[in-house]
Amino acid sequence: MKEFELIERITAGLPSGASVLQGAGDDCAVLLPGQPGTHLLFKTDAVVEGIHFTRNTEPHRIGHKALARCLSDIAAMGGRPVSAVVTLALPEGYDAEFIHRVYDGMGALASRFGVAIVGGETTTNPERLLISIALIGEVAAGKAILRSGAKPGDAIFVSGELGGSISGRHLDFEPRLEQAAWLASNFDVHSMIDLSDGLAGDLRHILRRSGVGADLLEQMIPVSRQARLAATTTPGAKPPLAAALTDGEDFELLFTVAAGDAVRLKDGWKAAFPAIKISCIGKISDKPGLRIKTRMGIREIQDHGYEHFSQS
Amino acid sequence: MKEFELIERITAGLPSGASVLQGAGDDCAVLLPGQPGTHLLFKTDAVVEGIHFTRNTEPHRIGHKALARCLSDIAAMGGRPVSAVVTLALPEGYDAEFIHRVYDGMGALASRFGVAIVGGETTTNPERLLISIALIGEVAAGKAILRSGAKPGDAIFVSGELGGSISGRHLDFEPRLEQAAWLASNFDVHSMIDLSDGLAGDLRHILRRSGVGADLLEQMIPVSRQARLAATTTPGAKPPLAAALTDGEDFELLFTVAAGDAVRLKDGWKAAFPAIKISCIGKISDKPGLRIKTRMGIREIQDHGYEHFSQS
Repeated sequence: MKEFELIERITAGLPSGASVLQGAGDDCAVLLPGQPGTHLLFKTDAVVEGIHFTRNTEPHRIGHKALARCLSDIAAMGGRPVSAVVTLALPEGYDAEFIHRVYDGMGALASRFGVAIVGGETTTNPERLLISIALIGEVAAGKAILRSGAKPGDAIFVSGELGGSISGRHLDFEPRLEQAAWLASNFDVHSMIDLSDGLAGDLRHILRRSGVGADLLEQMIPVSRQARLAATTTPGAKPPLAAALTDGEDFELLFTVAAGDAVRLKDGWKAAFPAIKISCIGKISDKPGLRIKTRMGIREIQDHGYEHFSQS
Repeated sequence: MKEFELIERITAGLPSGASVLQGAGDDCAVLLPGQPGTHLLFKTDAVVEGIHFTRNTEPHRIGHKALARCLSDIAAMGGRPVSAVVTLALPEGYDAEFIHRVYDGMGALASRFGVAIVGGETTTNPERLLISIALIGEVAAGKAILRSGAKPGDAIFVSGELGGSISGRHLDFEPRLEQAAWLASNFDVHSMIDLSDGLAGDLRHILRRSGVGADLLEQMIPVSRQARLAATTTPGAKPPLAAALTDGEDFELLFTVAAGDAVRLKDGWKAAFPAIKISCIGKISDKPGLRIKTRMGIREIQDHGYEHFSQS
């Protein structure tokens, strides 16, 4: 089977949408523009065998993860995903059934969030599978939640529990689209990012772009069960707090709101999403730098993250 | 230097545009929606070291080619490119200066065609460089030129000269955006595609999606000087006609118009683009299949392209 036939066969079964005038199969997809009063969101991301998944990862989960990462970025803007195009860079000796199942994983997630998959390309990457996805989303005009809007005094929130994602969650996480949309429509969220590099690193992105600092409270950081477990069972594992601060691929939402909104937000979240933890972990400061208050006093978290932190 | 710093430094110098509200540096780019009365075009494409370029290819030309391929797809819809996001999958030991020069090549081409580069991601692909680009474009509502609109009796045109692109043109070609826009605004173009797989293969895409056949005239196929030269100097090279029919990466426009428009189109093109050849190479037929009339009679060009053709 030729590659274009394989892709036509696969993409024929993928989710479409009302905005899709021409899906996969022409030089480009043709889409209706966004509703009046909306802005476009545009994002690309890639996952690579040996880095984001292994040769033994179930193909359905590879497809899920590849798309979920992009959806998480749309969530972090307070947006709604609309359509995706996919490039598969296939290693030698790939198996059509395998590719089908990668697309199944993508397609199931896309359907759940109303995302149309409107193009699929293949190319060759002899040593390893690489999947690159680009996504178009939309957001109400002027309502995109940027990294640059944090203000001194803001309460800092994070969803879920952090650290130890490598034990499985990095493959199966649900992007926090519903939660982000709820936040965007009920609160004036000053800044938001999704956690891909770890809490300390990603919070630093907000601080840098907002020109502010932050003070965290150790006891409020939601450390995952997996991170605690790894610390007690795996020789050389990071201490649980370090894992929560620096492990990658949590894909939770990190955001700031005015301190006066904090209680209403926490109560509203618990009512709306009882299964997903929400934590107020500290506050934004006009003093540059990132600090954490522990039982042993206040420590500065340096730019180099975990290494420096654990030695301080 | 951390990767995000490298990318921030590079993308800070890249072309932006009036429609860009938030470029690289946040979770997603934020863009103004298209003008009322337009549709969106959406495309992704990737180039891979060892397949689309070599380790010795000048980095500027790699960047140029990566973006030019996507622009060629927008041209093939009769559209206008608007903004791009880029993923670089970097091999081990990459050099920041090299990446800068890849971006320079992309940036120069983007500027020339008014394309904003609104996002840059990096990931790792240990053995080879891979560049994946996604592009948003726009086209007047209902005016996207599809592969599916060819009608029996249509004249088939191709721009430029075909074959032998591997000798250099595949790295340096200019996407035919200006020519496609001129066609779209002056003619009722029934179908169009850009030549990436070779004339025979890409024409077959039009035929299949339009449910028609085609008859070509050997003497009208514009064989490039490079393809003729290779045939006389390189042992085992394809005959020139076979090269013109089956060599990949010409990135010329292949399109069909009503026969009654053919003379006006040819004259108008010559006046508008005197440096770019235009050839009427045959006509669309209601009889399925792809045939070519040579001095030795009419031959069927089989699905397998060159191999079969050269043996028939």
